[in-house]
Formats: sequence, C-alpha cells, structure tokens
Amino acid sequence: MNDLTQTPEMLIATMGGRARQAAASLAQATDAQKADALRRAAQALRDHAPDILAANMRDMENAAANGLSPAMLDRLRLDEARLEGAAAGVEQVASLDNPLGQVIDTQVRPNGLELSRVRVPLGVIGIIYESRPNVTADAAALCLRAGNAVILRGGSEAKESNRAIHAAMIEGITGAGLPADCVQLVPTTDRAAVGALLKAAAFIDLIVPRGGKSLVARVQEEARVPVLAHLDGINHSYVDGAANPAMAQALVVNAKMRRTGVCGATETVLIDRAYGQAPALVGALVEAGCEVRGDAAVQAMDARVKPATDEDWDTEYLEAIVSIRQVDGVDDAIAHVAAHASHHTDAIITEDADAAARFLNAVDSAIVMWNASTQFADGGEFGLGAEIGISTGRLHARGPVALEGLTTYKWIVRGTGQTRP
Amino acid sequence: MNDLTQTPEMLIATMGGRARQAAASLAQATDAQKADALRRAAQALRDHAPDILAANMRDMENAAANGLSPAMLDRLRLDEARLEGAAAGVEQVASLDNPLGQVIDTQVRPNGLELSRVRVPLGVIGIIYESRPNVTADAAALCLRAGNAVILRGGSEAKESNRAIHAAMIEGITGAGLPADCVQLVPTTDRAAVGALLKAAAFIDLIVPRGGKSLVARVQEEARVPVLAHLDGINHSYVDGAANPAMAQALVVNAKMRRTGVCGATETVLIDRAYGQAPALVGALVEAGCEVRGDAAVQAMDARVKPATDEDWDTEYLEAIVSIRQVDGVDDAIAHVAAHASHHTDAIITEDADAAARFLNAVDSAIVMWNASTQFADGGEFGLGAEIGISTGRLHARGPVALEGLTTYKWIVRGTGQTRP
Repeated sequence: MNDLTQTPEMLIATMGGRARQAAASLAQATDAQKADALRRAAQALRDHAPDILAANMRDMENAAANGLSPAMLDRLRLDEARLEGAAAGVEQVASLDNPLGQVIDTQVRPNGLELSRVRVPLGVIGIIYESRPNVTADAAALCLRAGNAVILRGGSEAKESNRAIHAAMIEGITGAGLPADCVQLVPTTDRAAVGALLKAAAFIDLIVPRGGKSLVARVQEEARVPVLAHLDGINHSYVDGAANPAMAQALVVNAKMRRTGVCGATETVLIDRAYGQAPALVGALVEAGCEVRGDAAVQAMDARVKPATDEDWDTEYLEAIVSIRQVDGVDDAIAHVAAHASHHTDAIITEDADAAARFLNAVDSAIVMWNASTQFADGGEFGLGAEIGISTGRLHARGPVALEGLTTYKWIVRGTGQTRP
Repeated sequence: MNDLTQTPEMLIATMGGRARQAAASLAQATDAQKADALRRAAQALRDHAPDILAANMRDMENAAANGLSPAMLDRLRLDEARLEGAAAGVEQVASLDNPLGQVIDTQVRPNGLELSRVRVPLGVIGIIYESRPNVTADAAALCLRAGNAVILRGGSEAKESNRAIHAAMIEGITGAGLPADCVQLVPTTDRAAVGALLKAAAFIDLIVPRGGKSLVARVQEEARVPVLAHLDGINHSYVDGAANPAMAQALVVNAKMRRTGVCGATETVLIDRAYGQAPALVGALVEAGCEVRGDAAVQAMDARVKPATDEDWDTEYLEAIVSIRQVDGVDDAIAHVAAHASHHTDAIITEDADAAARFLNAVDSAIVMWNASTQFADGGEFGLGAEIGISTGRLHARGPVALEGLTTYKWIVRGTGQTRP
C-alpha cells in the first residue's frame, strides 16, 4: 500500500495525513462504536491466534539467529496465554469509562456567557516501541478509545508479529465501521522513519516512546513533537524513627523484591538513625536474596553489607540490589531524595502523621506514598484500567497515564449575542 | 553578580541551579507569603516609578535612535498609567484563588489505598519576550503565585526598563522573606542566551515565548524544553441560515472590528447560502471601515468587495481586513474551518440549537463559541484573572492559560502497610 522507495519523510507525511483524516472521523464516532471496534479487535486477535503465533515464531527464529539476549527474546515471545492476555487487555480498555465529553468545569460569567471545558481527543499519537509485540494491541486500544488515531512504529525484531497483530486490530476496527487508518503501522523498520516521525509536528500531536533508556533518550533528544516519556525510576523508601517495625520490614522487602525489574521498585532505602530495628530490616533484605550496599553505619549493622559508592545513590538497578543509607530524620531523608531521586515514586514509612505530611508535601515526585509499597506505582493498581506508560515529565500528565492523559480539552462558550465592550 | 565573560550555557546553568533552589523554597512557602510578596512588589513598582520611567526613557531614546517602528515604540513605552496598570495587575494576581494544594480527584482502592491527585508547582519556568516591559512584572507575578521560580529573558530594546522593574519585584519578594532567585532576569541581551535557555531541560520545566510569530517559531524550532506557545489566530465566525440577523451583524462587526490586532479577532466570516441578510452584513463591515475580500458570491453582494485569493483563507490579518466566503450550511462551514483554521477560536451564530451543537462538537479548536464574539477569547474574560498567554498547542493547557496552567499535580497515596501481591 505504501511505496517503499519513497523517503521516510514522504512516508510519514502520507501516513500522517491519513491519520489526521481518520482522527476527524473518529472524533465524530460514538463511544459505543469505538468500544465495539475494540471488542471486535479482541475477537480477531483470538480468531487469528495461529497466524499471529506463527508470525511470532518467525521473529523468534530471526532474533535467535541474530543473537538477541535471553531477556529480549522473552519480551519478544508470544504464546497462547500472552496473546489471550493481549486480547483481554483490549476488551478491558473497551469496558473503561469513556473519557470524552466529560465536563471538567463550567461557569457563567457576569455577562451571561456560559463557559465549559470539555474533554476531547488529543488527535494523532505516535508510539515508538521495542520488542514487545503486545504493545501493538494495547497502545492501539488506548489511543482509539480516547478518540485518537495512532501511528505505531515497533521494533524490527518484532516486525512479523506486529504486522499480524495489526492486521487483526484493523479487522476489528473496520468491522465496526471505523476507518482502517485509525491504527497505522509504519511498514518499514528503517530507523530513519523514527527520525521522520519525531519531527512530524504537523501530523502528530504526541509521541510516546515505550522501551529502554536509550530509546527514550533518543526520542527526547530528537523530537520536535511533544513527548510523554518515562525515564528513570530511582525510587526511595524512607523508614522513619516512628515506623512500625513489622510494617516497615514487610513494605521494604516488598518494595524492593516483589519484582525487581519494574519501574516502581525501590532502589534506595533510607533509614532514620532513630529507627531501632535497622539491623533486622537489613538482614531481612539480605535473606530475601538482595545484595545490600550500605554506607558505613549500615555496613556496621551486618557483615553481609557491601560498601556503597557515590554512584549507588544515583543508580536504578532493576535487579536484586539495594543501596541503604542512614539519615537523620525526615528532613535529611527529604534532602537525600531531592538530591538523588528521579521524581518517580518515593515513600515514607511511619506512624507519625506530621512526619508523613512533611514528606508527602516536600518530596517533589510524581507519586509520593505513606505506608505503602512503591511497587503499587502502576496504572492498573491506580484504577486506571490500563496505562500507556508512567510519565516522569511534569507537563500534561504525571505518573501513570491512561485514557485521560490521551485527551485534551476545548473551551465551549455559549452566548446569547454578547459582544465584547 | 553574574560574570558576563562566561559562556551563555554556563550563565544559564548557574541561573538554573539557583532557580531550582528557589523553587524548592517556594514550594514550602505559604500562599499568604506569596500573596504578600506580590503586594509588596506592586508597592515597590509604585515607589520606584520615577526610576522605572527614567529607565524606560533611556530605552525609548535608544530605540528611536535605532529606528524602531512606531508600533514597537508604543509597545516599549511606559507612562504613569501603564506602570500603575502593571502594579494593579500584580496585586490582582495576589488576589486570585490559590491553585496549589487543590485536590483534583481522590479515590479509595479495594485494598484500602487512598489515592489523590493534588496540584503542585511546575517548577522553573522560562519566559522569553520582546519589547513590552510590563511582562517582567506580570509573568513574574503569575509564575510566583503558582509556586514557580522564573527566569525572564526580555528584549534588548527594553533592557533598562526590565532591570528597573525586576529590581522592584525583587524588593517586594525579598521583603516577604522569599528568595530573590524566585525571579531572575537574564543579565545579558546576547541572543545565544536564548539558545542556552531553550536547551536547559535540566533546569527549566517549561518555556513560554511571548512575542511575534518569528520569536515563537524560533522557540518552537530550537527548544528542548517543553513550550507553551501561541501561534496564529485565524478565527472564523460562521453565520448560519438560522441566525438572528441583528445579532449576527452586531457579533460579526464586533468580532472583526472591536480591536483588529488581538489574537481573538475574527479573520474570516463564513455566510450560509440560506442566510437572507448577507448583503446587509457585508455592507455593515464595509461601513465599519473594514476592507472586505470575498468569493464570487460575496463580490456580487456589494461592489465594494474585493476578490479574495486562496491565500486570504489562510491569513491572520490583525488589521481591518476580512475575508468572507459563502458556504452551504453548517457542514460546509465545518469543512472550511477544518481546512483553514489555526484551531484558536471559532464561532457559530445561529438560533438552531442542533446546528450549534454540531459545530461546537465538530470544530476542533481551543475555543468554540455559539452566539458570542470571538473577541472574548481572553483570560480575563474567561474569569482567569490574568493570563500568561493563549495556547494553540494541544497538550497540558489549551486556550487561555493562567495559574492552573502553571501547575502540575502529584499523586499522593496513603496506606496502612499494604504490600503488592
């Protein structure tokens, strides 16, 4: 359908123009039609499971031949259960509350003008992602339900899987009477197409990169289009002197060790000098299989603690390693967080409501927690149903981003002939 | 205070680091303290009026010697009344509702976690502006009231005025016990400092350019920091067949002619073929002193109408010129707006509620109006008290932007020891 001899800029301009038209159609479609499209897409994913899994097998064979790491191969791999998970995820997005048409606020001016802010679609969204082929289904579903057209650019290693999933999504979308161009997949894995997408401000309203740090960094560096991105998750759990020891131990072990590879995992534990059960807490982490790197005070608590270097306080391990530092109360903890956090998720554990209020107020992170595990930093756990990502930026949407973050608003002004004096 | 021999990047990094520290202090200041700072700053503007007006006189003399246009000289000029207007504006910002700490929404999850989204400051804001020295006062006031530190970079032609106004603002701010670095003025008019500011993503969370199209275009092209910007205001007033003729004539003349140089002015009028009083409407615009450029149908209505070229439909005149086209009903009007609007402000004039609903829904602009003058597109008229600008972008804030648009939110999670399964 696309001429592969054209330049990446021409390709993206053609796709962008189609996406704009599809977005205009989508803006006029009913919510029931969008939900129907997603239910049909979920069914198509199930109907075409053999094709999709065969395509994934071809990707896996190529990837193995190209020497991809076991971690990347695992991300790339689909099976019946994972594909059913993707289909169920698309259905779940269909069941979420419609974000469009919501009245954010309304007022009547002294001159009688009635002003409302009403949620509308953002427009056209670009998603740039790496090996996980399920993103093709879930990102498309979220964008579509929020009334947006989407241009997907998946990783070259997943190209067969992405094409097969995309074809199933389109079957569902067109089956509901919506244009196929609502969800387009960039048909080339030429890296120059990513560059063209990042600069296509005339056609694309928002870029969401989903992948590792090098992808996100490239997108942030090159983009001329606004970017909603997740960078680091250097998260802290601060154990205050007034913490309940049993709770503190359970929370810290969960925050670090439940899943070490997620962005909400705690990477640094700060322990108040006044907390009496620090050695037990350190020991519990070691016994849970975690490598502990500590400052001198923490090293003195347990012979199994390794010395932490300056670099440790600024490191997102994403594995079973934790850095632990002793601090002097909540203000010292706040200062450490201000100096080292990535402003993602930071928690205080304490029974002292004043200390908690101080921490929650002073720590400038997307998510601040009191007596809870940082592992809860997740759109599903936040009741958003699904998430397009967790934003570590400060504009537009912060923390877990789902349907609402994929919308904007318009001002609607209703008058009775008012002229401005 | 700053070493002017350093590179622009070093200068901006130094200022940015100070701004970050000031922002952290501001985040802990009470709202009463911020409002007090602004009231004191307003008083300092009045107290130092002779200095400020003398500084402005020096700028005006330089500018006249440099051959600035009369329009630019007028923008640069301060007098007692304009300075009092700036002081009163700063006081007005002090009297607005505090946007910080507002709870946007709150929920309790099935596991008992209580989640709230609470408004917090954005952080550090950069304002890049041209000749109007009053921006030094009003942008600083808005940023400060929303809890942000600000770095101001005014035009070289206004440097003396800006320094004098900045000194008065600082006197008020430090008088209230807040750090002087809350409001910093870039001490050099070297254009390279703007480039450094636009790339200082580590220090600056948002850039707001205030000035002409060439400034805004440069900022959008070069910025690595998110930008909140206003580009064109190619606004439409559509007169439906079911419009009340007296209302339509009053609205269209007001929308075009009240002030032709404002971004909310109507630039194109679309007239439904079914509207019976089109010649009277066209005549009223001509008689109000407006040059009318029309399509063939409109030219046939009045001998004084000049022919419109294709370019007219995409032109923001900002003067007493209007383009008028005949359309076939609301859908044709919507199609013209979609093809030519800058998505700023577009209005329908009709007594037909269904046609109005169709237009308000389908037109994808920051502001859509029914039976009102597009000249109302203004933060003050929208009850926002003051505005930092009108955003024609789609992310974060759309249309008039005031205090709320200078904030972000954080998620606050309160638990009782929940671990994630």
